[in-house]
Amino acid sequence: MQEQEERVLNQETDLEQVIRQIRPLDEHAMEQAKKQWNSIAKPLHSLGKLEEHIIRIAGITGNPDVKIEEKALIVMCADNGVVEEGVTQTGQEVTAIVAENFLSGETSAAIMCKKAGARILPIDIGMAGKTKVPDYKVACGTRNFAKEPAMTREQALQSILTGVRIVEEQKKAGVALLATGEMGIGNTTTSSAVLAALLQIDPEKVTGRGAGLSSAGLSRKIQVIRQALALHKPDANDPVDVLEKVGGFDIGGLAGVYLGAAKMRLPVLIDGFISGTAALLACRLCPEAKEYMIASHKSKEPGMQILLKALGLSASLDCDMCLGEGTGAVAFFPVLDMAAAVYRQMSTFADIQVEEYQELGDK
Amino acid sequence: MQEQEERVLNQETDLEQVIRQIRPLDEHAMEQAKKQWNSIAKPLHSLGKLEEHIIRIAGITGNPDVKIEEKALIVMCADNGVVEEGVTQTGQEVTAIVAENFLSGETSAAIMCKKAGARILPIDIGMAGKTKVPDYKVACGTRNFAKEPAMTREQALQSILTGVRIVEEQKKAGVALLATGEMGIGNTTTSSAVLAALLQIDPEKVTGRGAGLSSAGLSRKIQVIRQALALHKPDANDPVDVLEKVGGFDIGGLAGVYLGAAKMRLPVLIDGFISGTAALLACRLCPEAKEYMIASHKSKEPGMQILLKALGLSASLDCDMCLGEGTGAVAFFPVLDMAAAVYRQMSTFADIQVEEYQELGDK
Repeated sequence: MQEQEERVLNQETDLEQVIRQIRPLDEHAMEQAKKQWNSIAKPLHSLGKLEEHIIRIAGITGNPDVKIEEKALIVMCADNGVVEEGVTQTGQEVTAIVAENFLSGETSAAIMCKKAGARILPIDIGMAGKTKVPDYKVACGTRNFAKEPAMTREQALQSILTGVRIVEEQKKAGVALLATGEMGIGNTTTSSAVLAALLQIDPEKVTGRGAGLSSAGLSRKIQVIRQALALHKPDANDPVDVLEKVGGFDIGGLAGVYLGAAKMRLPVLIDGFISGTAALLACRLCPEAKEYMIASHKSKEPGMQILLKALGLSASLDCDMCLGEGTGAVAFFPVLDMAAAVYRQMSTFADIQVEEYQELGDK
Repeated sequence: MQEQEERVLNQETDLEQVIRQIRPLDEHAMEQAKKQWNSIAKPLHSLGKLEEHIIRIAGITGNPDVKIEEKALIVMCADNGVVEEGVTQTGQEVTAIVAENFLSGETSAAIMCKKAGARILPIDIGMAGKTKVPDYKVACGTRNFAKEPAMTREQALQSILTGVRIVEEQKKAGVALLATGEMGIGNTTTSSAVLAALLQIDPEKVTGRGAGLSSAGLSRKIQVIRQALALHKPDANDPVDVLEKVGGFDIGGLAGVYLGAAKMRLPVLIDGFISGTAALLACRLCPEAKEYMIASHKSKEPGMQILLKALGLSASLDCDMCLGEGTGAVAFFPVLDMAAAVYRQMSTFADIQVEEYQELGDK
């Protein structure tokens, strides 16, 4: 057996082991959280999805005493060989510049994280060049999937396992709530390709202008994806194969973050189109992982609605944002914080001596 | 001329004067804010509605240097005579209990305000009994509109002018961003009645279960509103008449807050169904007032979509909330704070030596 084949086999085993450790939510903790909400002096269910998220977090951690203290945004930074095809408005050099700006606090997501009291953790999962961003490089960017598979199976597995490892490290560091973000010129192209492959639909339905393509550019982008799917024929039943053929290291790394969060019983916020595509890839590897995900916002990318439907999740922020970096997820941090504060601090009907609202059979 | 008639005439003149002082937004400040957004190192328009809100705030204050520092939630508390008709699940005594809890920080909105760094200002604009809540009482609750007009024209005008006065006080106290909230058992009934009257549509389309009515209760609520509209025939072209016949002091007070905000050039967040109805009433008195309003969330109340359409505004939070008190608006405070932080602190393309994104003619 060749050395490389052996490495791949070991990685497949490692990934299977991660998936095997993902368990359903703690129903008992969720029941207790529901009771707590219903005892609070306000109309039943009147915080809507926010109540459901807190209940879910109780089920995730196994503890109805939901506290959202340490929050962190993981930003997977990677380069994509497909930018050679002219599918973006800016060049690959922008990835490195913005990635380093996460460290100095000079990106939109970094500024928002500071406001939200969250840490920001840019990760070099596969940028083309060397930067000061923490190095978890799988390779120096993917290959151009218009010509050849974006990566090897080994690299695809490695990117996922790297995401898992980062969550393990963060959990040890005390993080209680994760958000996902990404930076990588060309990554709406890879996301549209992965999503079209996973859902077996025409790329046109899930391909948008990214950071600002012209109509001609959009047509080219769709064409590039369509041809790549025809060329590589990724196997929709094998998410790792889809990632290998038309994905990116950021998507693989984020898929690993979702699996890692589920393994480590941490709630994780999906951001927009790219992180959502990674979330779907993770769900295809392990359907139970979905229970650990919270959708934050409806990105303006045209594939977002299809994606949320495929995930079976509903997003709460609808601001036509499409910035990436995790900005939509971070914008949802303080809303969840507020929900948790009401859940923990609010008086019960007993406290204020008012009769409880009645649950209606016919509601 | 009778003394009362003279008082009403004076109030009509006062209201006209408020309306006359409401001016369009500052286009120049908005242009400068747009330029600032476009110079920032991120894809064009990628913060979507959040960019538009910041631009609007620049136009409201006349200053492109948008700072959101002092924030306050005004919670109009009032009682509604129509609760006699059994249109609610809880009794009128709950209004006073919850209103006092705003002062002690023991309501959902108070807890969320604390998290958001906002002040909460409960106002007794017309509760039935005496409490510790600051007294701006128009009367001790409205009359039962199933039997007689909810209030006199004098009271309707007084409630609006009281709202204006409160904003004037808050502006002097340094408030830079307002949110609106309310507390008053029965106030989804009055809101549905006012909205149906203003839009001249059947109440069924805009009447919901409020804080938890059964199906039978909902039918009764619709019937009560329908009969009251038939009995009093409020004049859709005279918003004060609508308020007088089927409104509430909280709705009048909030309409005044919107007019006062426009007069004092303060941005003001709409909360849900009740404050949104008051916003529409204010717009009917002065269409320019709309430019000063920012919609926050889509309440779960069935009339909310119709209401937002009538207002011509789009809400950003979609959490199925229906708690009232201003909770939806307060949940949006930190999201706006983040947008303002990006707007103020983010590097420009020139700073990071990257070429600007190009605006597309065909986008």
